[in-house]
Amino acid sequence: MSRRIEIVDVGPRDGLQNEGVALTVEDRLEFIGRLEAAGVRRLEAVSFVNPKRVPQMAGAEAIMAALPHAPGRSRIGLVLNFQGWERLKTTRCDEANVVVCATDSFGLRNQNADTARQIAAMAEIAADQASHGGPPLSLTISVAFGCPFEGEVPLERVVMIAREAAALNIPEIAIADTIGAADPWAVRRRIEAVRYAAPGARLRLHFLDTRNTALANAAAGIDAGVDVIDASCGGIGGCPFAPAATGNVATEDLVYMLERGGFETGLDLDQLIETGRWISSRLGRAPTSALARAGRFPKRHAPSPLPEAGEEARAAGSGG
Amino acid sequence: MSRRIEIVDVGPRDGLQNEGVALTVEDRLEFIGRLEAAGVRRLEAVSFVNPKRVPQMAGAEAIMAALPHAPGRSRIGLVLNFQGWERLKTTRCDEANVVVCATDSFGLRNQNADTARQIAAMAEIAADQASHGGPPLSLTISVAFGCPFEGEVPLERVVMIAREAAALNIPEIAIADTIGAADPWAVRRRIEAVRYAAPGARLRLHFLDTRNTALANAAAGIDAGVDVIDASCGGIGGCPFAPAATGNVATEDLVYMLERGGFETGLDLDQLIETGRWISSRLGRAPTSALARAGRFPKRHAPSPLPEAGEEARAAGSGG
Repeated sequence: MSRRIEIVDVGPRDGLQNEGVALTVEDRLEFIGRLEAAGVRRLEAVSFVNPKRVPQMAGAEAIMAALPHAPGRSRIGLVLNFQGWERLKTTRCDEANVVVCATDSFGLRNQNADTARQIAAMAEIAADQASHGGPPLSLTISVAFGCPFEGEVPLERVVMIAREAAALNIPEIAIADTIGAADPWAVRRRIEAVRYAAPGARLRLHFLDTRNTALANAAAGIDAGVDVIDASCGGIGGCPFAPAATGNVATEDLVYMLERGGFETGLDLDQLIETGRWISSRLGRAPTSALARAGRFPKRHAPSPLPEAGEEARAAGSGG
Repeated sequence: MSRRIEIVDVGPRDGLQNEGVALTVEDRLEFIGRLEAAGVRRLEAVSFVNPKRVPQMAGAEAIMAALPHAPGRSRIGLVLNFQGWERLKTTRCDEANVVVCATDSFGLRNQNADTARQIAAMAEIAADQASHGGPPLSLTISVAFGCPFEGEVPLERVVMIAREAAALNIPEIAIADTIGAADPWAVRRRIEAVRYAAPGARLRLHFLDTRNTALANAAAGIDAGVDVIDASCGGIGGCPFAPAATGNVATEDLVYMLERGGFETGLDLDQLIETGRWISSRLGRAPTSALARAGRFPKRHAPSPLPEAGEEARAAGSGG
């Protein structure tokens, strides 16, 4: 009887949005199809942003129209404002994710809206959903662990936003480390604070691997009782201007750690590794996830007297 | 009042030993000097192995003779057998680290000795040290979380070796994830088991980042009360035959996480990042640590209205 961790694959939205190459609608649909075939039950499919501003995300309505109906699968659409929500409602998105930035500076850069304005948009969307219906909402608090413009982000900012979401009965709150600054001990503290502010909400976590801490942060979150973790197949979603920096935590790497840890994910690791390779090649680069490069442990075939490439060298008098 | 975590930098030994390029004695001395200038108090300096087998480690005696005396610094020499111990005693090594492999297969490949034979060597060394003096000993149990030849490593193997070390009063036992297979929950269980087997020993942990789990494992170990963690400046020590695979956990990445977490390391992160860049260039490659690629958080200079390269793009309507 293993505890189940739900992984939300953000590759098709957050991943692709932050890559320099804009893929076709066909490739994006295939990516979603491959992920769902690998067992992914929730994924970010589209974002209802201005396609002129974010060309990687053009065609949201076309993608939603073309996706085959899939019971038990949930396709999430991102919305930054009421206009995005109205667009989403015309599609078959199963959920809407609203983003509120923990700092004004990031909000102004991200969406031309400071935090207060984004909270107002969230309230407007929630009121419309309550009165007129529509898919269930979730909130992502972005730059929740650090901001590239303002530096440290006071805990009270995250708590304040969570409290606003709680007042609107938003059922799920994601805390996002948008710039990969978080550490496991900060993750624990922020989870506790958001729990305090929004005791009825289900929590979710979104980590970037920019400073190699994503899996450490995810493990801390899971130990703190959070059951929903975002990840991006292939680890895609690095920054086009800083290609050496890593991006989102790779779904395949997270699944490896969780399954070794005794948790159930419902995902097929081999298919995820293959999908990560495939999307990387569509993006014109080598796969970056650790599992794509190192392979599984233990190996699937029977142990061989011949070591895997590389292990021979490490074994040759290598000491520890 | 922060808890202090002691980091043992294994770059000059484990790191360099597992790189394809053999550096000069001069470069290796400079590496040690730079690390000690960055605050490193314990490091693996040399290995007393056959230099024909492991050319990267040739010149152990020359290095130890050339190292300046440094009070408060401890230079560790690795020994695989009694012959290595006799060589070490002729030098100014401050400590000797004995390696025992948790599987026979890895031991036979590593040192032409199965586990029982390595335990016998450890006993011989310990007896000699007790009778005739010599630097204090530590034990590293290698492939403690998985073996490239035998796959899963039974916990009982690790416990058995720890028990042997306890009977010899070895003061410090390191548990090493030689192939980067471990996960945080396995780390916890193996720490508890080794504590049970060797209650008087100080514990130490050695992780590889092959599957991106090293920092998660380190955080779990620290939360389980282990205060000594190995790391390799620059993250050096990948496998020469599988250059895409990462190697040891990078000291600078570990220090970032720990200092953000509120722990004290006594190390200078900027100098570590710089040293990691330097050693990478000596090895003829770009730096691989996350901190070398992404930089610190928060930035040292005053927050600027201009974002760092890359953050602008991520901020442009990026959502979460």
